[in-house]
Amino acid sequence: MTEGTSGCGFDRIGIVGVGLMGGSMARGLRALNAPPHVVGFSLDPADGRLALECGAIDELATDSAEAARGRDLVVYATPLGVTLDFLGQHSAVWGEAAITDVASLKAPVMDRVKELSEASRYVGSHPMTGGEGSGFAASSDGLFRDARVWLVRGEGATRAAGGVERLWRALGATPLWTDALEHDQRMTWVSQLPQLVANGLAATLAEAGYTPADLGPGGKDMTRLAASSPEMWRDVLETSAPRLAGALEAAGVELARMAAALEAGDLAAITELMARTKEWKG
Amino acid sequence: MTEGTSGCGFDRIGIVGVGLMGGSMARGLRALNAPPHVVGFSLDPADGRLALECGAIDELATDSAEAARGRDLVVYATPLGVTLDFLGQHSAVWGEAAITDVASLKAPVMDRVKELSEASRYVGSHPMTGGEGSGFAASSDGLFRDARVWLVRGEGATRAAGGVERLWRALGATPLWTDALEHDQRMTWVSQLPQLVANGLAATLAEAGYTPADLGPGGKDMTRLAASSPEMWRDVLETSAPRLAGALEAAGVELARMAAALEAGDLAAITELMARTKEWKG
Repeated sequence: MTEGTSGCGFDRIGIVGVGLMGGSMARGLRALNAPPHVVGFSLDPADGRLALECGAIDELATDSAEAARGRDLVVYATPLGVTLDFLGQHSAVWGEAAITDVASLKAPVMDRVKELSEASRYVGSHPMTGGEGSGFAASSDGLFRDARVWLVRGEGATRAAGGVERLWRALGATPLWTDALEHDQRMTWVSQLPQLVANGLAATLAEAGYTPADLGPGGKDMTRLAASSPEMWRDVLETSAPRLAGALEAAGVELARMAAALEAGDLAAITELMARTKEWKG
Repeated sequence: MTEGTSGCGFDRIGIVGVGLMGGSMARGLRALNAPPHVVGFSLDPADGRLALECGAIDELATDSAEAARGRDLVVYATPLGVTLDFLGQHSAVWGEAAITDVASLKAPVMDRVKELSEASRYVGSHPMTGGEGSGFAASSDGLFRDARVWLVRGEGATRAAGGVERLWRALGATPLWTDALEHDQRMTWVSQLPQLVANGLAATLAEAGYTPADLGPGGKDMTRLAASSPEMWRDVLETSAPRLAGALEAAGVELARMAAALEAGDLAAITELMARTKEWKG
């Protein structure tokens, strides 16, 4: 890794996966003064071509290792399981590059780079942005602006840490350092649980015979995430399964408790709960 | 009720309650060519003064009956229980006026106007818009633009029906006729259930020690409604309690089923559910 002269600190960047996250990073980098040279790769050929045609990347790699070879920074923006596979496949071609990823869990990636003895070049990223869209078509150059990005640092990755933090700041994000396990525990509750509650609510409404057109703005808010890509979530949900089961169970118990209060005509219990959550929202 | 010359078909309108809904109606009417003369009333004196100072209403009534006397149309935009009370208190001063309301349940209001033998001037409205805000400060002149408004017609209310439908069209809304009981059944699922699921999820997150600042955009979507006003919801929830208990229970069972699948490592069940709800969202 050499100190670059581009607006983000890295001159040559490889982005493996140019969907919502990787595509938005490519577009955000392109919008900088002195943009770096970006080589992209996509498992979805249509997404890769689109990123190239839109001018978001300088070159489209024909295989994933090509995007990872000869760079100052390689960014993995693929589903978690694919990222874990690519790390093992690519480590031989990384040269001096710093490595980051955008997976929404950090401990499994940290474990993998440790196994590969590559922790000293690894800084994991988790941008708290996105939504229900997926693919390059859903990307935008402002996706990371004002977003929190959780960062975790591999042991000894001092230089990479400075570089990756600078990259996110250049994209308008707010980087915050954390610990991989603590991060993943938090995400079970604040990210995966809301996602599955949206799916559960949508399934309940579908089963009762209602359609999205029947919903008002509140119901639309509450089912927006039900359109999220199952492919993007599968690995994350699998990794978190036991912890996430506990969180879902807690939410289910809360709903059952509210149902029982309504059944018993205990409206005060419901309005007290509403007042409490209104205060929590602040 | 006389055929008016204003842009909405009614020349003299009384709006009882100038909060989010009533305030938005007043502002929307004010923005029309040839706006009607609008007298407002608010149980919250600060809201009433604000509506007058902002020019949303022509006059602020000092008591609710004053807003209901000598009008072509009286609009009740107060919580459901207050509306039911006002209908009984005001019916003697309505003269020739048509009557509507914006409560999110229609059968209780329809029952009340029947008891009062005033069904032939009553058309109930339920605009499918709003959100977690409340009070005049949350109102806007475009709140009803492109929103569905469910309408129910009192027996014999032919003239009022044409007038109220025309009013909503003037505000940019899409009026749709329905039956009061069918409407209320639908709202249990598409409006009240999402509201309480948001409260339940927020309560679960609060109990686990997380704050709104910990949430990404998905979690923010899923807890936005947790800031809704308990006062505005109380009467609605009470009226729907038994039916709503069943809907909440169904959602709780769905979450418990998902928790069990995760516990058993049955990821296929989860991704199939996600694929189904993604398709439902369309």
